Amino acid sequence: MKDAEATRERILEAAMAEFAAYGIAGARVDRIARASAANKNSIYRYFDSKEQLFTAVLQRHLERVYTEVPFTPEDLPGFAVRFFDFAMSHPDLMRLMAWSGLERSAATPPALTESMHGKLAALAAAQMRGTSERALPPAFLFTVITAIASAWSAVNPVWMSIDPEALTDLPALRAGLASAVERLCAD
Amino acid sequence: MKDAEATRERILEAAMAEFAAYGIAGARVDRIARASAANKNSIYRYFDSKEQLFTAVLQRHLERVYTEVPFTPEDLPGFAVRFFDFAMSHPDLMRLMAWSGLERSAATPPALTESMHGKLAALAAAQMRGTSERALPPAFLFTVITAIASAWSAVNPVWMSIDPEALTDLPALRAGLASAVERLCAD
Repeated sequence: MKDAEATRERILEAAMAEFAAYGIAGARVDRIARASAANKNSIYRYFDSKEQLFTAVLQRHLERVYTEVPFTPEDLPGFAVRFFDFAMSHPDLMRLMAWSGLERSAATPPALTESMHGKLAALAAAQMRGTSERALPPAFLFTVITAIASAWSAVNPVWMSIDPEALTDLPALRAGLASAVERLCAD
Repeated sequence: MKDAEATRERILEAAMAEFAAYGIAGARVDRIARASAANKNSIYRYFDSKEQLFTAVLQRHLERVYTEVPFTPEDLPGFAVRFFDFAMSHPDLMRLMAWSGLERSAATPPALTESMHGKLAALAAAQMRGTSERALPPAFLFTVITAIASAWSAVNPVWMSIDPEALTDLPALRAGLASAVERLCAD
């Protein structure tokens, strides 16, 4: 049983690299099998299909976002900077999300939807308490902040044509980001 | 000669739909041939390779962005709203850009780089003249504004999990966008 667990783990890791590089349609189960020293049959036994394997990989890594980037409605600039740092240090996950947006139907995992409802409710409550400004509606503000905080990652195809050198000065991006979100939330 | 032009045109149109749906790796030249009533050989004769055909399609449509969305450094909220309207009415192009970001090397077409330099210089000049605030540097501000203005399109994989109903009220998004960019540019 321990062996099975270890194999499953190796498959998930190899699948992450393969999907990040090639997307769902482009990924080859053969290559994942080779890279994880598992055989193709065991991959299908554990995960059923390439699609299901992708779902497993994506969910597992999305869960890390929730743990590692706590949402702080009373400190949105801080949240934006943490989200940015996470995106910068997890380029494979950003690519996975971008592939997912292009290749999959609109269905969002229920766990994600639930977590999102919680965040938006917390933001609305903070706006009501006056600890967060309420000029922009919660869902709009959340969309804008996450779009800005991931603007220098694989999910944004244009940043590099605007400023190919942007990533050479991360502290400047962090400071700009905090200042931009402060402005968005100002009265 | 006129026939050749018409064929080329039909190929480009069919290729746009095929690439938008499946990306570069997933696109099938067979399907493009069928959809454009051209034969596969003539596609390779005109465009050399699937990659080159993608480049031709992308460049042609990117040029429309420049024409249809003039950059107005002294009116950045207006620019953001026009960019948003363009993104909303050209979902295929947004998908093409997203695929391009994932599947291609970082090389930006020279024409795009040149046009971008012009826009950033114009924004810097407007900031110097005081017709646009200068708290945020031009390249940063431009990246942020385009990221926000395309946040409800295919290039952003998360908007739908935040607010699946967002597109049912476009006037509200436009107003929010204008207000957000005003805030970003305020003193």
